[in-house]
Amino acid sequence: MTQTPQRTAPIGVFDSGVGGLTVLHELLVGLPQEDFLYLGDSARFPYGDRSAPELRGFARENADILLARGVKLIVVACNSATSAAIDDLPLHVARSGHTVDVIGVVGPESNLAVARTRNGRVGVLATPATIASGAYERAVLAVDPLVRLTSVPCPRLARISQNGAPITEQDVELAREYCAPLREAGVDTVILGCTHYPFVGALLQRLLGPQVTLVTSGTAIVRRVGHALALRDLATPSEVEGRYSFLCTGDAAAFATIGSRFLQLPMGTVDHVALTQEAFA
Amino acid sequence: MTQTPQRTAPIGVFDSGVGGLTVLHELLVGLPQEDFLYLGDSARFPYGDRSAPELRGFARENADILLARGVKLIVVACNSATSAAIDDLPLHVARSGHTVDVIGVVGPESNLAVARTRNGRVGVLATPATIASGAYERAVLAVDPLVRLTSVPCPRLARISQNGAPITEQDVELAREYCAPLREAGVDTVILGCTHYPFVGALLQRLLGPQVTLVTSGTAIVRRVGHALALRDLATPSEVEGRYSFLCTGDAAAFATIGSRFLQLPMGTVDHVALTQEAFA
Repeated sequence: MTQTPQRTAPIGVFDSGVGGLTVLHELLVGLPQEDFLYLGDSARFPYGDRSAPELRGFARENADILLARGVKLIVVACNSATSAAIDDLPLHVARSGHTVDVIGVVGPESNLAVARTRNGRVGVLATPATIASGAYERAVLAVDPLVRLTSVPCPRLARISQNGAPITEQDVELAREYCAPLREAGVDTVILGCTHYPFVGALLQRLLGPQVTLVTSGTAIVRRVGHALALRDLATPSEVEGRYSFLCTGDAAAFATIGSRFLQLPMGTVDHVALTQEAFA
Repeated sequence: MTQTPQRTAPIGVFDSGVGGLTVLHELLVGLPQEDFLYLGDSARFPYGDRSAPELRGFARENADILLARGVKLIVVACNSATSAAIDDLPLHVARSGHTVDVIGVVGPESNLAVARTRNGRVGVLATPATIASGAYERAVLAVDPLVRLTSVPCPRLARISQNGAPITEQDVELAREYCAPLREAGVDTVILGCTHYPFVGALLQRLLGPQVTLVTSGTAIVRRVGHALALRDLATPSEVEGRYSFLCTGDAAAFATIGSRFLQLPMGTVDHVALTQEAFA
């Protein structure tokens, strides 16, 4: 039996931890009337070193937890899970009897970057695992094979500033090193291909120059989700701000503390969810 | 003898304390090659309750400190000082033998807001003192007398989030109260008329809706300074990021600690400057 989602249902968002909260932040600002349910799979954080089959399994379980709570759309706010599972997950959702769209990172920001570039030179900054997966290269070249993409793996960029510590001169030198190949290539558009990078957005903008457009996962996802809701006639009829809440597979208190720095809006409630039975509770 | 400034000289920026660092932040991102010298008059903070003649005196002294160090342009990154002194200060600068432009807040963001509105309804959120001064109303109506301006005094908005504490539900209710008259008036453009408000920019955007354009002092000042440098042929010939440093009339260590939260970039050096003799050292 196919279950059609309700317009008043929340949008589900999942990530391996708190990083995806920068995407949720943009969604809360860009689609303020919608309700959201965020799942942080912090018990299995980080996803970076997991195999693709393992990540496909995690993504299915995360989706099941959200579907069991009646979400009307699923956002995969995680680069690793998107790279491994974005083709498999919609099939899994459909087979389990739900007509729910799945939107991941990578695709939306690649599309937006190609739409924005004027000189055809686009850069992407991401973790070494994301760059090695080739996901951005495939996505950008699928939209426009004539774009020249410069990919820079940034092993230490995600650590800067996310703990609330001031940015240091050493951080600036590190970021400068990552920006050097982009400056050399003359890119006019740069994808921030990791959910943690909005914390260093201003620093990167200063190093790259004001003529360069930065594209974050959050900005791109907001548009894509907005289109999807309009197309499916699933936008909420509410005119007041929506509610949002959190599930996490690990320590809920730690998630709330660290998460509030990433969300930059009140955290509301965080509930623990166990990974085995509760998915189908 | 008139002193013509050098292209390689820094741009001077002053405020009563750390608030203007959000303006400097935008200047560092938008004009990365320029050098900056920031003066925080923290010994006399806050400016909010001072009389206009007193503020004109303070602005002159601050300008003298910056001029003595050879700045090529002066930015008044402070609402109170701009309201009281923006007409007097250029005369003082000229009389003291300098051909240095003075750019304040209020004017640039009013101009940008009028340029951006499509329905002619503009809002401004600012401190009670700024709203009472009528400065935004005069500036907006001078650009376009047919714009309908809705002014909202926000006695407690500057306190939210600037100390690094997470935004609470009470903060949201407070911000919602300040946004209510703007929503009712149907504004499509809102001026954030206080240098502290960028900290609640995302919250305000969520409450006002994504179709509303927010205009901050920083964004507007960056353009105005860029134009001024181009017009006077004073843009730096440097192609690497500029340097920036800080003077403060109060406790330099406290300024550095609090300031780094406002600047969101490395603070560099902060030197104490005494208010009497050193102005002309």
